[in-house]
Amino acid sequence: MNHSSTQGQRVIIIGGAGMVGQKLLYHLIADGLGDRPIDSVCLFDVVTAPIPENAPFPVESKTGSLLDQSDIDWIAAQRADALFHLAAIVSGDAERNFERGWDINARSSWQLLEALRQEHHNSGDNYRPRLVFSSSIAVFGAPFPDKISDDFHTTPLTSYGAQKAMTELQIADYSRKGYIDGVSIRLPTVTVRPGKPNLAASSFFSGIIREPLNGQPAVLPVADTVRHWHASPRSAAGFLRHAAILESDALQNRPTLNMPGFSCTVAEQIEALRSLAGNDAVSRIALAPDPEIEAIVQNWPRDFDTVRALALGFTSECSYEDIIQVYLDDDFEPTTH
Amino acid sequence: MNHSSTQGQRVIIIGGAGMVGQKLLYHLIADGLGDRPIDSVCLFDVVTAPIPENAPFPVESKTGSLLDQSDIDWIAAQRADALFHLAAIVSGDAERNFERGWDINARSSWQLLEALRQEHHNSGDNYRPRLVFSSSIAVFGAPFPDKISDDFHTTPLTSYGAQKAMTELQIADYSRKGYIDGVSIRLPTVTVRPGKPNLAASSFFSGIIREPLNGQPAVLPVADTVRHWHASPRSAAGFLRHAAILESDALQNRPTLNMPGFSCTVAEQIEALRSLAGNDAVSRIALAPDPEIEAIVQNWPRDFDTVRALALGFTSECSYEDIIQVYLDDDFEPTTH
Repeated sequence: MNHSSTQGQRVIIIGGAGMVGQKLLYHLIADGLGDRPIDSVCLFDVVTAPIPENAPFPVESKTGSLLDQSDIDWIAAQRADALFHLAAIVSGDAERNFERGWDINARSSWQLLEALRQEHHNSGDNYRPRLVFSSSIAVFGAPFPDKISDDFHTTPLTSYGAQKAMTELQIADYSRKGYIDGVSIRLPTVTVRPGKPNLAASSFFSGIIREPLNGQPAVLPVADTVRHWHASPRSAAGFLRHAAILESDALQNRPTLNMPGFSCTVAEQIEALRSLAGNDAVSRIALAPDPEIEAIVQNWPRDFDTVRALALGFTSECSYEDIIQVYLDDDFEPTTH
Repeated sequence: MNHSSTQGQRVIIIGGAGMVGQKLLYHLIADGLGDRPIDSVCLFDVVTAPIPENAPFPVESKTGSLLDQSDIDWIAAQRADALFHLAAIVSGDAERNFERGWDINARSSWQLLEALRQEHHNSGDNYRPRLVFSSSIAVFGAPFPDKISDDFHTTPLTSYGAQKAMTELQIADYSRKGYIDGVSIRLPTVTVRPGKPNLAASSFFSGIIREPLNGQPAVLPVADTVRHWHASPRSAAGFLRHAAILESDALQNRPTLNMPGFSCTVAEQIEALRSLAGNDAVSRIALAPDPEIEAIVQNWPRDFDTVRALALGFTSECSYEDIIQVYLDDDFEPTTH
């Protein structure tokens, strides 16, 4: 991009109605996006995204689907300076609906890259937007070393992981050829998620913290010895924002990055909860082993050595207490119990 | 596959007119394909494949294109027991023709997998063929460790490599779901190739051996300190055949394998030539550095530690003399000079 530093940026968040998309929007409002001002943000999603009232730039909600070629063409035609691609169907859905998963999570992403490449070719000005893709540690499949290094191979054990890994490869190749300027970041499991439990197998990692803090009972379906890799929603949004302002040269043709996080066992999560909210909170967690969830979780990464991402300036929490505190600061709404 | 051990096998070699496809056919004629007899072999290619006269089973040549959906459907409808997918446009072609490379090397492979999945769903007998995919060490991109391990990540620096890596991911996922029974094997550079030099940047690795043996001059475009990873055409065909008869369970959801090979420098290649053909042959090699080829070659893998493939019974040459001897045995045709 050869814009002057005073020209403003247009931003599109694909998947902008989701939890992480909304967090990202608030980060853009609070912290901007690098040296150049933001002119506008478009929240693209299948549902109408909430628009905050306090934004210092216009925020637009655009409903559409990446399964619709005309919507993909619309996105490319906006000639955004930065696109965040957060749209996907979740792991469990992609596993149950093989065709739908490959269509939405992989084929649509390819079509988006193709539309951006056409815009690059059709433009007279070497249009080449920064594309930040939210990938996932689901690209990895067991068996693992204790800590997964930056050069560990991708052997996904879910279709969702395979689809993310495929899009990473394409983003790297389209970027190498100069059609886009892409970065793929592999997010840790995001906890503590605000809101209600969902159907994801990972839902309990948030639930065992969030529900007790809200005076509700929580179910722990796995042994408390299970180790996992966490980052807060605030960190996830921070990763995306930081990825958008990285210097391309620093990526050295390897634009896929394992994001930092905090590795801990469920027992350590629970002790962090105890230290912040006391024994009463902890007593609301009931162990109820679920063999199906245990089987899924044992194939998940437990720990990473994210040398590259740390060197590139990505930061996350250093304790699970910090992760809980982010939830208390950003999302907790005290109610009368 | 639930066939009885006496029922014969139908085999399709996609890319059956090519050098490796033809070598594979001769291996199937000589050694069969596991415990069950071969009923027939179909050589599918864009050009008519040569048919040998000595085959103990019917061999058919079928011309068609993986860009044509009706040809892909025809392949799936054959309900072959084993399919070898060797079809691709080469690295240089895919690099110059971005769209064509992604269409032929990636999109077509996906459509083939989809056609096989439809056949699986439509059949009442859980049709699930063994698919052997010829991938390449081009899925790797520099910088490398001295020896690339089985769990090193794929960061291709060519579109060809990205396309191969994408198809590997899809074959693994379609196999995990039980729609096919796939194996992807990453072939070393195949030397000594018979025939004429081609436009591949790697052509000289064969040329500096083949041309001198045939009394012709050869050009070496890189320093003789360049180290590379080699296997003979005979080994490549052997890998494919062995991959077709591997037990699926032995792959443990990681059906992508780095193939064994022999790592040596160009100087060591030349010394092997000297030991087999003398100083006269070596004197026909002229050093003529080509910066473009040098730049490409420096991003290529040099050596591997192929623990898994060796444990699974894949074998290759243990010296470059052996590799030259394979050329002399299988392809060399003495002429009067």
